[in-house]
Amino acid sequence: MDFTSDNSWGAAPEILAALAAASDGPALSYGDDPITARLAGRLNEFFGREVAAYPVVTGTAANALALATLCPPHGAIICHAQSHIAVDECGAPEFFTHGARLVLLNGKDGKIDVASIEAALPDFQRGIHASKPSVVSITQASEFGTVYRPTEIAAIANAAHGNDMTLHMDGARFANALVHLDCAPADITWKAGVDALSFGATKNGALCAEAVVFFDKAADFEYRRKKSGHLLSKMRFLSAQLDACLENNRWRIYATRANALAQRLAKELASIGSVEIAYPVEANAVFASLPDDVAARLREQGAKFYDWAPSSGGRTLVRLVCSFATPERDIGRFAGIARGP
Amino acid sequence: MDFTSDNSWGAAPEILAALAAASDGPALSYGDDPITARLAGRLNEFFGREVAAYPVVTGTAANALALATLCPPHGAIICHAQSHIAVDECGAPEFFTHGARLVLLNGKDGKIDVASIEAALPDFQRGIHASKPSVVSITQASEFGTVYRPTEIAAIANAAHGNDMTLHMDGARFANALVHLDCAPADITWKAGVDALSFGATKNGALCAEAVVFFDKAADFEYRRKKSGHLLSKMRFLSAQLDACLENNRWRIYATRANALAQRLAKELASIGSVEIAYPVEANAVFASLPDDVAARLREQGAKFYDWAPSSGGRTLVRLVCSFATPERDIGRFAGIARGP
Amino acid sequence: MDFTSDNSWGAAPEILAALAAASDGPALSYGDDPITARLAGRLNEFFGREVAAYPVVTGTAANALALATLCPPHGAIICHAQSHIAVDECGAPEFFTHGARLVLLNGKDGKIDVASIEAALPDFQRGIHASKPSVVSITQASEFGTVYRPTEIAAIANAAHGNDMTLHMDGARFANALVHLDCAPADITWKAGVDALSFGATKNGALCAEAVVFFDKAADFEYRRKKSGHLLSKMRFLSAQLDACLENNRWRIYATRANALAQRLAKELASIGSVEIAYPVEANAVFASLPDDVAARLREQGAKFYDWAPSSGGRTLVRLVCSFATPERDIGRFAGIARGP
Amino acid sequence: MDFTSDNSWGAAPEILAALAAASDGPALSYGDDPITARLAGRLNEFFGREVAAYPVVTGTAANALALATLCPPHGAIICHAQSHIAVDECGAPEFFTHGARLVLLNGKDGKIDVASIEAALPDFQRGIHASKPSVVSITQASEFGTVYRPTEIAAIANAAHGNDMTLHMDGARFANALVHLDCAPADITWKAGVDALSFGATKNGALCAEAVVFFDKAADFEYRRKKSGHLLSKMRFLSAQLDACLENNRWRIYATRANALAQRLAKELASIGSVEIAYPVEANAVFASLPDDVAARLREQGAKFYDWAPSSGGRTLVRLVCSFATPERDIGRFAGIARGP
Repeated sequence: MDFTSDNSWGAAPEILAALAAASDGPALSYGDDPITARLAGRLNEFFGREVAAYPVVTGTAANALALATLCPPHGAIICHAQSHIAVDECGAPEFFTHGARLVLLNGKDGKIDVASIEAALPDFQRGIHASKPSVVSITQASEFGTVYRPTEIAAIANAAHGNDMTLHMDGARFANALVHLDCAPADITWKAGVDALSFGATKNGALCAEAVVFFDKAADFEYRRKKSGHLLSKMRFLSAQLDACLENNRWRIYATRANALAQRLAKELASIGSVEIAYPVEANAVFASLPDDVAARLREQGAKFYDWAPSSGGRTLVRLVCSFATPERDIGRFAGIARGP
Repeated sequence: MDFTSDNSWGAAPEILAALAAASDGPALSYGDDPITARLAGRLNEFFGREVAAYPVVTGTAANALALATLCPPHGAIICHAQSHIAVDECGAPEFFTHGARLVLLNGKDGKIDVASIEAALPDFQRGIHASKPSVVSITQASEFGTVYRPTEIAAIANAAHGNDMTLHMDGARFANALVHLDCAPADITWKAGVDALSFGATKNGALCAEAVVFFDKAADFEYRRKKSGHLLSKMRFLSAQLDACLENNRWRIYATRANALAQRLAKELASIGSVEIAYPVEANAVFASLPDDVAARLREQGAKFYDWAPSSGGRTLVRLVCSFATPERDIGRFAGIARGP
Repeated sequence: MDFTSDNSWGAAPEILAALAAASDGPALSYGDDPITARLAGRLNEFFGREVAAYPVVTGTAANALALATLCPPHGAIICHAQSHIAVDECGAPEFFTHGARLVLLNGKDGKIDVASIEAALPDFQRGIHASKPSVVSITQASEFGTVYRPTEIAAIANAAHGNDMTLHMDGARFANALVHLDCAPADITWKAGVDALSFGATKNGALCAEAVVFFDKAADFEYRRKKSGHLLSKMRFLSAQLDACLENNRWRIYATRANALAQRLAKELASIGSVEIAYPVEANAVFASLPDDVAARLREQGAKFYDWAPSSGGRTLVRLVCSFATPERDIGRFAGIARGP
Repeated sequence: MDFTSDNSWGAAPEILAALAAASDGPALSYGDDPITARLAGRLNEFFGREVAAYPVVTGTAANALALATLCPPHGAIICHAQSHIAVDECGAPEFFTHGARLVLLNGKDGKIDVASIEAALPDFQRGIHASKPSVVSITQASEFGTVYRPTEIAAIANAAHGNDMTLHMDGARFANALVHLDCAPADITWKAGVDALSFGATKNGALCAEAVVFFDKAADFEYRRKKSGHLLSKMRFLSAQLDACLENNRWRIYATRANALAQRLAKELASIGSVEIAYPVEANAVFASLPDDVAARLREQGAKFYDWAPSSGGRTLVRLVCSFATPERDIGRFAGIARGP
């Protein structure tokens, strides 16, 4: 019963098989191989237009490289105070951008909105005495398992562009958001005004594969990837993961399963009187407020999950993440233990 | 007939199998998994002492992270003018160290020596007006396929330590050097005074796996790896590659084969009157000076390899790299074409 | 009637005279001159112990260099959300530290306290996923013209040291704080646990002179100053300003005058029914809430000052700064206009 | 008899007087003052066109800020191996550019030429594996006291622009070069293709004043100056130095005197059989090869100067720098001692 994270599970068998297949024979290194070329075509098809896409091995690298391409060293990046780039990447955005400032906004359900962005700007629009607002970064699905609607994204993009900023989307769980919205990838990216996307596959069946996708131009990105050690020599093994994930809509199959398990888990937990679901369950994570004795009982009986806040008033907010590989029986078992005898 | 690089070949089947095996079931992410723990033990055994070792996906990342740990932003790193960190990493050492200066030495057969290090120091030992000499970095095996002897390394280490510097070894082809020397890993690392090693597996059968190995302390390394996006969430897939490479001395089997093929290729080429072998062949690369028509004929008949210098006087220096996976028949075929009809 | 800032006024005549005197004859450059040596002695005397002090030309440089010496690139710096390093230095701390994160605390009257520091720590004490809390930075006198008591500083220092952090003090208006407290420099620095001080003279009569003062060791500071272009070749002209400021307790004379004018201004304004003094007036700045028509009348009649917040409810919070050179008559005149006809 | 450097002398009386005059009354800070505005006009007049000029306090800051504006973090800067940015600034170019690589060229008399630039380029024009050649930097007058002709500069500018690079000129001794060439400032800057100039006044009578001058656009320069702590709050004191230096052609008077003294010193030394002048004396420095006993005798009798290379074969290359303030009698006295009894 492992609900700690979607990266606590291994890789999908089809992706492992693609790695083995990719290994056959010699190929040019550093991305000049046929699999990387095939991936480029597949991504164009996925997004419904030509894109500039660059595989990397981690979401932190994808986010930080995307932000560094969009934001000068003296720039400011506006994001949710609980976003991954703000709290879980040990200053990677600052490292890759050479010192840009993160501007942290609060916002309901892990999402930011136009009003909070515009309220933050005046402090930074005083000429050279403050970092220059350069990028807005949103997370889709958010850290709290919620999903931005296309209209919400478009409104944020307008606010960003209207203030001479660009819009970055951290899509570590992009597939989960897509499945929830049941829309085309284009609808929540370039058609809505997103300039750069960190498109994640690691949490959705891959071993270590994300793509940084630019919808316009990506000045100097390849230099930045190379000098940060993120250009793999045997690039085909990275491209093959993304390629296999996109092939035959596997991304959708994996994410659909993860989301459905989260829905089922949420539904079961919500039916327990002592449990409260903290945020709308729109992706593959359930945030639940549990009585401390319930959390303890779950752990005693083998459930693994993270507390999301310190215990308070006898209750703890916990995060429960489902993945493409979470066993279905774990859902019922977890809920059963939570419900108690 | 692909002799372009040892990274133009895929991965060893045993390593691919290890990946598949590693995927089973849930595991803690970010390195707190059993495979990473097992790898730690295996590396201790390999080096004959406890080491602090950190897997990363590229040699550039391994080198740059090691150097950044050893060298302050105002430091200088002394290395061969043709070393990988100097010419092939797009400024990665400068990026990770936040601006350290590389001091480029020439040296016979791709190796540097104590005399050239000591000759370079006075320019940098003038207090704060020049970057502070902080690290010497050597490449084992070197970019030219030559190998440092244990005594050579020890002499360089003494010179480094005697001048308040540390010694880094870029071991992207460490296994090839070990096989050539037929000594223990300890003999050319910590026993000889090496402080940090980039231990490569990618060129020796892995998909994308290197380990940064510290023999003393590794202050802050884990922060640096994390904030540069080089800490994999599903770390087990990276550790599994290194683990499989070390298990049953596979590293030795792969490197032995690559070295032997290079020896055979060199021997055959040396027997051709018009061909000159440029450097001692001690690892898995052969640098040969070919008449331009011979080079052209080889390429026409399907051989792939890189020129190492522009054509001059009707001859070109080319690099021919063998790997664990180079087909044996390609050696004879290549030599046959070179020999001509 | 210029109350915009204490840096809108020129230099004290004694300091200008010291510059002229310093110009005589040749002297070794880069700080190996007799005036810099004399300054070192004078600073030791000022602080009642040996200190390592380094002159620079701006407060931004002093703060950023001090912080970079204390904080690694992956570190976090805890400070007030309205501190100069947070809002007025365009990311200088991030630039000099190579990407450290500022952690912004709110706090009454522009000051932070132990409770807010300790509340912020848990988010950053999760291993390598968040920047490592490394430095607490306080401002003395604060941006709001308030002053930390020795006991308050000691408590913060204890909290910092107890959590493996150091304590930096931005003393751009250190002299004004000292005069208010009527204590020895040692009492609010090293005796209270401060590790590094930005000791300002620019706002207190100099042209462009601050000193970064370390009470313990200052690893590598001189390299950092040099490579950031802050080591003056004709250093004597920078040292002479600080030297003249300390000589004959001029610093005290200047700051006493500035503080006294602020006190008088605050007293006069406080006696006007429609005016509210926003923060305790303990240094040389008065923050007053004025009816918008009063602010407009003042400006019409020649008063210069900055709004500190947008107008709200017909009132505006304004900042009024006095300096060593503010004409005494401007106080009465300003208050008279504010009082109205 | 101080010939150590042109920065071992103080400031010109007219410039000190300008400082005192600048101190009168209040003025807006950070450059919004009338003296800074007046300086802008004077620089436009000096260069014969509108320029974007930004005062800073050191040559290191001027060079590094100019280079950072012209060169991306993954760029390469081509310069002479003995240039100030290469050997005397402790990695400031790397710090401000966030890690650009210096490419060091040798060249006769301290100057580089088109042939050596073009010979260096191929190593860096291999796509993303090497830093991208972005800037050529030349020093006028050079570190060896020689001066580039307008045609030499134009040829280098053409080579730079033809390879998608820009041209920076380190003009710490720009005035000395101008006086030697007896041409207009425009002739050796924008008319010859220079994109950015570090225009020095510190070595020519100022206390601490240089201007970074852009002839085209200066994207983001002001952000870079601010965040590096190089924007003075009381900017008028910096602008006043440059203003006074340009007023009434004082720069020419000072530099003419320094150059003339160097010429006289060189002439006298050249007439001594045992002394050899190493480089053409075109600015204010004389490089002379002295028998070691002559050098010793000079030092015994009070002469101060730096060795430029270690003693070899009983002789030492020494550098003798004259300034606007060097006493005329010191020339004859020095030569007399060198000549011997």
